[in-house]
This record gives sequence, C-alpha cells and structure tokens, in this order.
Amino acid sequence: MAGSSYGTIFRVSTWGESHGKGVGVVIDGCPAGLYLNESMIQPYMDRRKPGATKYSTPRKESDEIEILSGVFEGRTTGTPISMVVYNKTQRSQDYSEIASYYRPGHADYTFDSKYGFRDYRGGGRSSGRETIARVAGGAVASLILKTIGIEVNAYTKSIGPIEIDYAKCSRENVFQSPLYMPDLEASAQAEEYLSQTMQNQDSAGGICECIISGVPAGIGETVFEKLDANLAKGIMSIGAVKGVEIGAGFEAAKMTGSQNNDNFFTDNSMVRKMSNNAGGILGGISDGSEIILRAAFKPTPSISGTQKTINNMGQNIDINIHGRHDPIIVPRGVVVVESMAAMTILDMMFINMATRMDKFTEFYRK
Amino acid sequence: MAGSSYGTIFRVSTWGESHGKGVGVVIDGCPAGLYLNESMIQPYMDRRKPGATKYSTPRKESDEIEILSGVFEGRTTGTPISMVVYNKTQRSQDYSEIASYYRPGHADYTFDSKYGFRDYRGGGRSSGRETIARVAGGAVASLILKTIGIEVNAYTKSIGPIEIDYAKCSRENVFQSPLYMPDLEASAQAEEYLSQTMQNQDSAGGICECIISGVPAGIGETVFEKLDANLAKGIMSIGAVKGVEIGAGFEAAKMTGSQNNDNFFTDNSMVRKMSNNAGGILGGISDGSEIILRAAFKPTPSISGTQKTINNMGQNIDINIHGRHDPIIVPRGVVVVESMAAMTILDMMFINMATRMDKFTEFYRK
Amino acid sequence: MAGSSYGTIFRVSTWGESHGKGVGVVIDGCPAGLYLNESMIQPYMDRRKPGATKYSTPRKESDEIEILSGVFEGRTTGTPISMVVYNKTQRSQDYSEIASYYRPGHADYTFDSKYGFRDYRGGGRSSGRETIARVAGGAVASLILKTIGIEVNAYTKSIGPIEIDYAKCSRENVFQSPLYMPDLEASAQAEEYLSQTMQNQDSAGGICECIISGVPAGIGETVFEKLDANLAKGIMSIGAVKGVEIGAGFEAAKMTGSQNNDNFFTDNSMVRKMSNNAGGILGGISDGSEIILRAAFKPTPSISGTQKTINNMGQNIDINIHGRHDPIIVPRGVVVVESMAAMTILDMMFINMATRMDKFTEFYRK
Amino acid sequence: MAGSSYGTIFRVSTWGESHGKGVGVVIDGCPAGLYLNESMIQPYMDRRKPGATKYSTPRKESDEIEILSGVFEGRTTGTPISMVVYNKTQRSQDYSEIASYYRPGHADYTFDSKYGFRDYRGGGRSSGRETIARVAGGAVASLILKTIGIEVNAYTKSIGPIEIDYAKCSRENVFQSPLYMPDLEASAQAEEYLSQTMQNQDSAGGICECIISGVPAGIGETVFEKLDANLAKGIMSIGAVKGVEIGAGFEAAKMTGSQNNDNFFTDNSMVRKMSNNAGGILGGISDGSEIILRAAFKPTPSISGTQKTINNMGQNIDINIHGRHDPIIVPRGVVVVESMAAMTILDMMFINMATRMDKFTEFYRK
Repeated sequence: MAGSSYGTIFRVSTWGESHGKGVGVVIDGCPAGLYLNESMIQPYMDRRKPGATKYSTPRKESDEIEILSGVFEGRTTGTPISMVVYNKTQRSQDYSEIASYYRPGHADYTFDSKYGFRDYRGGGRSSGRETIARVAGGAVASLILKTIGIEVNAYTKSIGPIEIDYAKCSRENVFQSPLYMPDLEASAQAEEYLSQTMQNQDSAGGICECIISGVPAGIGETVFEKLDANLAKGIMSIGAVKGVEIGAGFEAAKMTGSQNNDNFFTDNSMVRKMSNNAGGILGGISDGSEIILRAAFKPTPSISGTQKTINNMGQNIDINIHGRHDPIIVPRGVVVVESMAAMTILDMMFINMATRMDKFTEFYRK
Repeated sequence: MAGSSYGTIFRVSTWGESHGKGVGVVIDGCPAGLYLNESMIQPYMDRRKPGATKYSTPRKESDEIEILSGVFEGRTTGTPISMVVYNKTQRSQDYSEIASYYRPGHADYTFDSKYGFRDYRGGGRSSGRETIARVAGGAVASLILKTIGIEVNAYTKSIGPIEIDYAKCSRENVFQSPLYMPDLEASAQAEEYLSQTMQNQDSAGGICECIISGVPAGIGETVFEKLDANLAKGIMSIGAVKGVEIGAGFEAAKMTGSQNNDNFFTDNSMVRKMSNNAGGILGGISDGSEIILRAAFKPTPSISGTQKTINNMGQNIDINIHGRHDPIIVPRGVVVVESMAAMTILDMMFINMATRMDKFTEFYRK
Repeated sequence: MAGSSYGTIFRVSTWGESHGKGVGVVIDGCPAGLYLNESMIQPYMDRRKPGATKYSTPRKESDEIEILSGVFEGRTTGTPISMVVYNKTQRSQDYSEIASYYRPGHADYTFDSKYGFRDYRGGGRSSGRETIARVAGGAVASLILKTIGIEVNAYTKSIGPIEIDYAKCSRENVFQSPLYMPDLEASAQAEEYLSQTMQNQDSAGGICECIISGVPAGIGETVFEKLDANLAKGIMSIGAVKGVEIGAGFEAAKMTGSQNNDNFFTDNSMVRKMSNNAGGILGGISDGSEIILRAAFKPTPSISGTQKTINNMGQNIDINIHGRHDPIIVPRGVVVVESMAAMTILDMMFINMATRMDKFTEFYRK
Repeated sequence: MAGSSYGTIFRVSTWGESHGKGVGVVIDGCPAGLYLNESMIQPYMDRRKPGATKYSTPRKESDEIEILSGVFEGRTTGTPISMVVYNKTQRSQDYSEIASYYRPGHADYTFDSKYGFRDYRGGGRSSGRETIARVAGGAVASLILKTIGIEVNAYTKSIGPIEIDYAKCSRENVFQSPLYMPDLEASAQAEEYLSQTMQNQDSAGGICECIISGVPAGIGETVFEKLDANLAKGIMSIGAVKGVEIGAGFEAAKMTGSQNNDNFFTDNSMVRKMSNNAGGILGGISDGSEIILRAAFKPTPSISGTQKTINNMGQNIDINIHGRHDPIIVPRGVVVVESMAAMTILDMMFINMATRMDKFTEFYRK
C-alpha cells in the first residue's frame, strides 16, 4: 500500500516520478456521460505548470495531458480514465550530487529509512511533479461538480508576512496576480518580498484559502468520515502543507461559544446562518453555507543558502542546493488545493447517495 | 457507509448514541497475544469521563468498559474485540425541548438535512459520548505501542487566551491539573477564566497538543496516505476540532526556508535533527523525531445564554439551552486526541511491515 | 485486519465466539428511515437456530436478537446498527478435550499456525455460531431489498446423493421440509439418508441454491468488482463452502457456445432472454433475469467415528469427537447463503447509484 | 467505483479498452528492492498473447509491456509501478456492426443498461484484452512469491468433454501442449474436438486448475476475508468464469465426513495431512498443503453460427458474428488464473504480517 490511491467511489490512483518517463493518474469511478477531452483538463494543468513567472521555477515543463482510456466519442464511459503527462525536459545531471546527502526539509532521509534506498533524481516520487496527477484528477472532479453548480475556488491568502482580506477582493483579480493573490497591491508587495527572499538565498511560506460554494446541506458522514476530516486528509497530503483549518479554525480556540456559534435564521423559508465560523460544516456534515478551509504551506525546502546536513557516509557536511526551485510553493499549490477539495467533496457526494430509504427506493423504482 | 469505521489493518468500528442502550466499539485486526483486560482500559475511560471537576459536566457517568469478545485466557486471540459501555444515567426528559429546534453550533440541522430526521436525545450519534468508543480503541492501540516503547502524550496547551509553554513544564503536572494543563499557575488562571465564562453563560475553546515519542523513522506512506494526512483526518474527525497542525504548523507559513528547515547531524552515528519544525514527519514519513501535532477545539456549542435560531416550523426564535454541559471541551478531549493518534500510528506501522523485499523474505523464510 | 468486515457502503462488521459472551454485528451504512425492530429480524435468526429438527444439533440456543443502537422511534437513523445475541447455554466443559488436538476438517490447526494459540471452546471464532451475525446483517439487507421488490430465496438442492429439480417444486414447500428441500418426497429420502449417516457415525454434504429475483439490469461493476465475483466471495466465505457457481456454472464448461449463450428477444418492448445459463449476470453486471447461484457445502467435519490426527505434543493419535453436531450443514446454511447474497446485492446497488452523470445531476438538482 | 482495483496492501488498478490507446496497470504497494525489468514480465504476457496456435485468435498482438514508473536502477522503489501495453493492430472497422445489436453471452446489453451507452469497439472495457493488465500485475506478484519458494501453476484440465488427470502428467508437458493440457494424448484429442467445433461455427468451454505450492500455514483471515473467499472473488472476476471450487469442491457435497476430512499426522515433526480434499485451506486459512482451485470457463460467446438477438431499435433479429475469435478461452486463461491467484495470495501474505504481537515487536524492536 504505497498510498497512491484516494477516494472510495471516485477513486484516483497516481504514479510517476520527477525524472521517470512521466506522471499519470487513473480515475476509477467517474460516472458515464461526462463530456471530456484534453482541452478541458489542460487549463488546470497550466495553472500548476512551472515557468509562468519569475516566482516559479524557470524549468520549462510543457506538461501536456493525454487521455489514454475511458472516453469514447467525447464522453466518459464509466470505466477507468487513464491520463498521463510524459516527462520531457528533466535534466538528470542536475541532481547527481543530491544522491549523496539528505536535504533538510525534504523526504530524502525518510525515504531511505523506509525503503532502504531512493530514486534521488529530482526527489523521485516525493517531487512536486507528483501533483500533476492530483490536478488531472481534480480537474475531472471539478468539471463534474460544475454540472450541479458547485465551484471550488482557492487563492493565495498570505506570503510570508503579507496577508490579504479576501472579502475586500474581486475573484477575477486572482488571475491578474502572478501569485494568485487577488489584492493586487498586496500581491505587488509579496513580489517585492519574494525578490528579497531570493536575494537572501532563502524561500518563503504562505497560506492558501479555498472556498467551495454550492454544496448542498447533508454531505459528509458521521464520526470518522466527516467531510472536514476527509478534507483535512486530502489537503494535508499535499507535500508542503503543515496545517489545515476549517472556518474560524485555530481562531475558534480563542473565541467563546457565543462568539463562535453561527445562529440560524430563515430567509424566504431558506435556512441561513448569520455567520460562518463553522466554515460550512457542522458535525462533519455540510450545512449549505460556503465551505471554507485554509492550508499552511511551509517554505520551499530547497534553498541555495548554506545548510548543515549529513552525507550517506554519516559525515556532518555543509551543502548548498543548486538548481531551479520555486522561492514559494503556494501560488502553484492553489490549483492543487482546489483539486484535493474537489475530489473529496465529489467522493462524499457519491457516497451520500445511499443515505436514505426514500431516495433509494425512488432511484430504483423508476 | 455511515462512516463509523477507522483504519485499514487495525480497524475500529464504533456504534451507539447518547441516549441509546450504550456505546461500543469493535476492533478488527488487533494482533493475537496482547495481554488485555478491562482494568487496563478503564483508566483511559476514566480520563474521558465527565464529572471529575466543576469544569466538566456534573452528569454522573460511570462509563464502565466491558469486553465481549476477542480475549481468551487474558490474551487477545487475533479476532474482533468487541467492547461496550452501557448507558446508565441518561435522562431523556432533559432533551425533549431540543427536538423542536436547531441548536447553533450543533449537528441538529445537518443531521436533519442528511437523514430526514434525527435521534435528538442528547445529540444522538453526534453526542460527545461517541468518543467513548474512540478511547476504548485508542487504549488498545496505546497498549500495543507501549510494547515497543512508543508513548502518546497529549495535554491542554491553551484555554481561551491562556496558553502555556510545554517545554517549561513537567509531564507529571498534566495529571495535577484538573484541566490537564501542566503549567499549574496557568492552569489556575484558566480555571478562573472558565469560572468567569460560566458566569457569563458562555463557553471557551482551546488547543490540545499531542507528542508521540519513540516512533521509528520510516512510518507513513507516500502521496495520499502520508502519516500526517492520516493524523489530520483522525484528529479532525473529533467532534469540535476545527484545525490541525503538525510541527511548526501555521507558523511555518510565516517562516523562511532557512528558519524552518531542520538541519541533520549525526550524534554517535545516530541521525538527528537540530530542530523539529517538521514535527517528526518529512514527506509524509516519520523521521525518528518526536511527532508533534496540535488540534484547535471550538468552544462548547451548548451555552445557556440566549441564542437565535429556527424551530422545526421554520420560525425564527430565541432559545436558551439548559442542562449539564462542559464549559470547555479540551480537557476531556486530551485522551481522545491521544486515542486517534495512537490508532493512526499503529495502523500505519502495520501497513509499513509490507514495505521492503528484504523484510518480507526474512519474515516468511523463518 | 482480522477480516470480519464485509461491504463498502453497506458495511457489516461481526464479532463473537462460540463460547464467549455473545455474537454480534454492527451495520454501518444502513439508510435512514427503514422500519426496523427485533421482531422483523428474529424470524431470520430462527431459521438458522439449531434444535428445530433431529437433523440439526439438539443444543438449545434461543438466539434472541437485540438491537443496541441505530434505531429511533421504530426507524433506522442512518447511523450504525449494533445487534447482539448473547450466548446462554454454552457448556464449556464439553470442549475441554479438543484443546489438546487438531480436529480434521476444522480450523484448529490453521488458527494455531496463524495466531500461535486459539480459543478452543466450541471452535471459538471459527464456530458456526459466527453466522448468527451474518444472518442478522442479511435480514436487514433483505428487508431493504424487499422495499423495491427484490426477493432472495435459497433452498437445499442436494443432500449427499439426493438432488432435486427446483423447477418442479413449489416455493412454499421449502418451509414444509425440515431440510428446506421443497421436493417433499426427496426430502423424506434425504431424512432417511441422514438417519443412516448418523448411525454410521458420519456426516453428509450437500448443495444450496439461491435465486434472487427482481434485481434490475445494470448492477455490478466491471473487471474486479463484478457482481458474480462479489457473490462468490461472500458465499465462499461461509464456513463449510468449497465451491460456488453462477447459472450453468461448471456445466457451462462442457457446453458449446450455441448451447450456453442466452439469446435475447423483446416481449412487449421488454428485453428478455430465451434461457438463463448466465444466471442473470453478463460481464459481471446483472441482466435483469433471475440471479442464480449454488454453493457446495462439505460434510460436517465433526463426526463421532474414529479419526486420525495429532495432539499438541506432536503425537499421532486416534480420536472420536463427542458432543452435539449437525449431521448436515446445508439446511441451516440456507438462510446464511441468502444473507450473504442479500448483503452483496444491496451493497452493489448502493455503489451503482454513482454510475451515471444524468442520474447524479438529477439526484442533486432537486 | 468502476471496480478496476484489486487488493488491499498489494493493490492493482487497471485501465484500458480493446480499441483504445492501450491497456495498463498501476501496482501500488509492491515492496522496494525487487529486481524487475520488462524482460522478466514479458514471458507472462506472451503466454496470454493471441496468435500462438490455431486455437487462439489469429489477430496479431505483439503486446509488449513497458514499465513507466516505480523502478530505479533495476529495482522497485516501493512506489507505484505503472505499466502499459499500447494497442497496435486493432482494426476498428471490424466491429462497426456490433454497435447496433446485443451479442448473446456478451456484456453489450448489461453495459448499456448500466452506463446508458458503451464503447462497442471490440467489447471495449469488457474485452478479453483487459486481462493484459491482470497478467502484468500477476507477473510481479509471482516474481515476489518465487523469492520465498511459492509457485503458482495452472493448466487446462478439461476442454468440452475431454478431461485429464493431472496426477498422471508431468508439469513440463504443460508447455508442450498448444492448449496447456499436460496429457499430450488428451491434448491432441482436444485439438481434434476444437477443430470440429470450429467447423460447426461453434465454441467450447473448459476447466482450468491451479495449484499453489509453498504457501506456509496461517495465511488468510477469518470470517469474510478467508483465503478461499478472496481466491473465489479473484477467479470469478475473470471474464468467462462461471464457477470456482477449492480442493474437492462440488464433489465434497456428495462425500461423507469420514471421506472428506483430511486426517493429520506428523512426519519428522512436520504436520502433514493424509489427503487434501480441503485444497490446502481450512477455516479460510492455509494449512501448509498445496492450495488447489478450479475455474469453470464458459464457451467463447462469439460464435459465427446464427443467433437470435435484438438490435438497438428493439427489433428481434438474426445475427452471425464475424471476426477473429478464440474457439476456447481456457488455454489463454491459464496465465490469467495464475495471475489472480498470485495477487490474492501475496496480498493476504502482506496482510498476515500484522497478525501476532510477538512478530510485531520482533519486527520493530530491531
């Protein structure tokens, strides 16, 4: 159980290493009848793709997605959808040095501990290129969710010390910012901060927030399979994420009950809440409000400044990591967060279809 | 898939409602040969039990655990261990009123949305009594982990505005504090704060930190089944938890790479790290350091102050929730956090046994 | 993973040993809103119960089912349904001898090999009493299936050399025969055969056939999760079953394609088949015909005649197994086969709800 | 959940259609350190490949396997192994006619019922080409099992009325027979029978037997996850299989207990059995004897003789299926049966590693 499958009904299995032949995904459980082709998925891939700005690695990766199965005459058949991005421009020679030591903040040491050795080229399976497969899976999930009006939208909430207030921003501005930070003034400041960080041979962390609108009340299971529990797993499984929170999150720990509780009211016989500290989830089940979550990304572990570590002969050494690395992970992580959220929500919506006798009998009596 | 099972190899399935006949757990996948009896589990139950201090509900719940299967002549047989706590002192009449409206911050509305109706007595399945079963499962997991020197220890890190520095505390003090807060001066302040909160007909939130020591390097799977991803799911599945973080967590988002990276060094040919911002997990796999996680608990949603909500006729009403409720969830949540962590770590250790050819052939060649 | 859970959406977890405190089941994933009480389940239990005739063990087991959770005001709530049958009349002293040797045809040796020791009282977990929990789970599944017109009916097709032709029998006669063999003349012959077998200190095997009517076309998944694959697993998991076949089964291996293929035709614009050698399943998916399967039960391994085996000191010895044992397993197995079939079909029907985009959007757009 | 994943720890996910771009498999959970390259897998593929003899379809399919991930410097890394066989010589025009009607014995009608439409080219996902991926997965499982001395060997036991006695055959002869039938005289008779069948525009069924040697006692879980239950699922999931039996199988139903029970004895302090009617499995757990199972394959459903069916306008029509089809499935199915058996056994061996406290502590204390 290498752990590369995700989901119960909408199950995604991924494969591939940074410097192998490619990275791919098999989606098992996509419903039949979805219109799907590569051009519908490629825009999601392009948002993850490096090289767009100077704040992402200058490596050229075209990352063209190809569908290998599961689509016939433009529609999904209900059978597994296999998709692949072939690796094209990997330069293995860049990575020969890192074979001999453990990079701080990377999975080099833990992979060796677990498996006895590792594919050290570009991080192998623990490379950020692994997220290509997540985004391809997330794109299909997002396309399905859109058919019933569910939108999954993330953005860069903070970079280092610069944090924005999304309520004061326009969603469209997300795509005006090279950092997917919709407060364009703050975005410019963050660019400045990143430039400085790069000059310092250092890197920066940040926070991504994701808002999912249109999810009906009633999605999520009780006890262990709560919607927020599954979202937490999906988001925390993204490489550099070290924290996840829903709604008020860690702030809720400082609030009182009267501050934190969202009071209900009716508006034209619709059930509404006066606030949304719960982030759209009560008791693990969606309440019909926007679902709101945040992911804390640590700074890119590959920095060019001097670090201390050990080599594979057990000697204490100083290293400087060369090569092409993002100074910040968050902007490229935005679409990855959306992808994990979309796959999680969709899977739980499929599972939810079997919840009530009245709906079961209606489904099969027709 | 009501969602009441947890784990792959060490799989725990729970059942029971606040005011039903009892709450129980079936552990499927406990190895044979563990010495086990009720008196080894009861101390874990007692830490969760209400009524110990004035900061937990004055309800009397004896919560005696009984083993129904899976143990023979004092040892586990390898077959399912069924355990139950029968409900004894529930007073259904206390809860008749809440059948008619949706309590803010509770799962009343979402359960109705999902299932069409709900067992409203004391919250039914979404009651905190559900965690009895988690603690029973966690006790068994903890006992197994202890046999190889792994300890899972949590404590109350903050209550409302009062936060402590665990590094300056003695572990023993955890059990000297009625709030499981090992800085006893801060604990007294927190008691004062809670008294004030109760007078205000309000409740408080807080943070629980959990430290797991002794986990060998190499535990956790790649990509989706990362150790931190599974810990996040397990912890976030606890009723009132709204955020989870590992190591530096959300603070990492504000750090630079040079600050956040933990440098490696060797000490008597042991691989060590100079810091532990990673919280013991790199690339989803344990690195041999202490695993550190924090859970943010929201304030108890049941407060006696006036709140606005709607009743089941769709009318906007004012309510005051009466009855016996904890003013803070964290102290009783400490052992629940430990339980989820223990079950998660153990399950991933079982899964990890199948990771390497050399260990596989050694296991079966004997 | 002791292996005591079954199903994905409708997931049943069982526990209990022959001579422990009881045998139980937790059903996780039963839809909300099913009318359910003990009196609806007990008739299924009674069909499995020993002592009804001289061809089942004369042990008195009342086997009263009790619901512990998941039902509120007479209807399932959607949360786990825990049910238990407490063991009452087990006489442990009967089994003290078998602790010292391995009974041929039983799991004594394999349990010791796997777990290092075993609960030897009455077979422990590998006792036929384990099927109590299957029948309780199957009863709930059957009750759900009935609401949409699906009936699961099994009967005794053969006992030793006596085999009947169900097409010539009336379904009602199943319950007229103490052996659940609806050809009453053959049933009388089988009784005679069993009397003779018992006199010979021996036991008999037989075949159970199960017919499931009313399953709509389209149930079952492709490749590994075929409906027949899952039925085969469920049926083969019953203690004494050594073979499973669907439709023509092993006979199909002797037929030609023109004999075996079921030709399609339309009848009032309904798609029909001229024969049903496929047993209602094509490519792993139901075709709308009756689903037909057969299970081969080996003879009861506990016989009073002399057998050779080894004791736990590794000595070759002769044994005679005393005590109360069925001379034939099939009649009591009939309701167990139905139970496994019902749970399997129902689970795959729940899974099937997520198969098509048109049905997904219709489900959630309302 | 299209159903294309198999296994818990050693998990195989397959994809691909008869006339799509290719057929592939992702193996998630292969241990690190296995020496693996394409030339070790290709021999397994070649045994499944059509065109070898006149009793398999004359279509030319080179079916070259390519490894895309999970192998580094000649050894598996522990991360997902993706493998693909690109489709090369499919002629879509051959299949245009079958789009308009439902072939008897095929999954055309059931796919349409389930999904609303189907990829009709060569059967799409329900084509026998799907088994390419099973064989690739099975090859890796077999290579792992060989490292600890476990061999999985199947052969053709019967074709139509011709059945052989394996006990009288030499294993080497399996590969001397174009039908994998090691009684070469019977094999010649079967060839004659098949020639006649083909002249009759018809097809034949048969039985495949599989013997797995070297499995230690103690493999398999209790109750639902019995070793035989999982073998039954795996084998029954193969396209044309309609029956599965273990050991004496359906014959056991006609035997008495004294005939069927395998008596134990010791031989040089090894536990042995005097017979093997159990087929190496007692109570769902391996007993150290050879594991023996048989699969009944129905005749190839595609026959050139006239058949009755309906077209997609609901009209009753006569059809003759043209094209290149095997007159018998069994010989090419032999390696597929081995593959499913190997994957099942291996997965249960991995699961079994977590069964005992003594082995757990030994594994992690080192």
